[in-house]
Amino acid sequence: MEELVEQAVQDYYGEEIAWCYGCGRLNEKGHHFRTGWLTPGEKTVTYYQPKPEHTAIPGFVYGGLLASFVDCHSTGSASLALHYKNGHELGDGIEPPRFVTGSLHVDFLQPTPQNVVLKAIGKLEEIHPKKWKVLTEVYAGDILCVKGEVVAVIMPATFLKNK
Amino acid sequence: MEELVEQAVQDYYGEEIAWCYGCGRLNEKGHHFRTGWLTPGEKTVTYYQPKPEHTAIPGFVYGGLLASFVDCHSTGSASLALHYKNGHELGDGIEPPRFVTGSLHVDFLQPTPQNVVLKAIGKLEEIHPKKWKVLTEVYAGDILCVKGEVVAVIMPATFLKNK
Repeated sequence: MEELVEQAVQDYYGEEIAWCYGCGRLNEKGHHFRTGWLTPGEKTVTYYQPKPEHTAIPGFVYGGLLASFVDCHSTGSASLALHYKNGHELGDGIEPPRFVTGSLHVDFLQPTPQNVVLKAIGKLEEIHPKKWKVLTEVYAGDILCVKGEVVAVIMPATFLKNK
Repeated sequence: MEELVEQAVQDYYGEEIAWCYGCGRLNEKGHHFRTGWLTPGEKTVTYYQPKPEHTAIPGFVYGGLLASFVDCHSTGSASLALHYKNGHELGDGIEPPRFVTGSLHVDFLQPTPQNVVLKAIGKLEEIHPKKWKVLTEVYAGDILCVKGEVVAVIMPATFLKNK
């Protein structure tokens, strides 16, 4: 039961920005990462069970999938944080802001076992009016496998020119 | 014609380590990234055409796919470099060494357009007997979209315990 995000920020993105391969609810082939508050205003969480094909060396999860997990968890976390700072909550009728990734850093502390639900926990820091730093720890069960640091940036309006 | 790697290091990995979702030739559902020399002993290259579903915001490539591309390009590049340093070349009957990712850093310089073949170009630096740093630039056509820095580590033998 604890492995469910009841209210995910990605559920509330506008339709034109809900196609991300990692976290877009409208991308049929994507991962559908869903990010919500673990502790409102403090810590965010995303769960994901990698698929059997998401392997690196057999038995361990592919690093690129872990990087993707950290990436979308972080942009979602930044969205949650700014929405919260602005006095909003999910479901109040105001769309949360959409962030994109400026930089992504992932440290692979130890191999991540397959066949386990992964949990990403994020902490947030506003570093600029348009940028948030998201520090993430990814656990497989109780094992801390990955640390991530992302600088998420409010999506420039120009990103929608290609829609 | 220039967008083909004729001899890729991933073609020569041993069967038990050729299942990576990013670059394993035996992973039917994976990306099949293939990395070879652009300039032998100096620069490596990997090409990839993202699929339509690999989207971030519509029109632009998903950052997690780009991180995956940099990741496997880098471990493949490190393998090529150490194999070369050891006096071997692909196809001489000696398996190239398998690297895993210690850390991955990606800077997204500008949005990466979809429907373009991507080209990752890597430069290598040995930083430890078991570690190589790989500096990568990812181009979409002539546009430099992404810079990557990976520390690749020779795969510990313990990784094969789960095979």
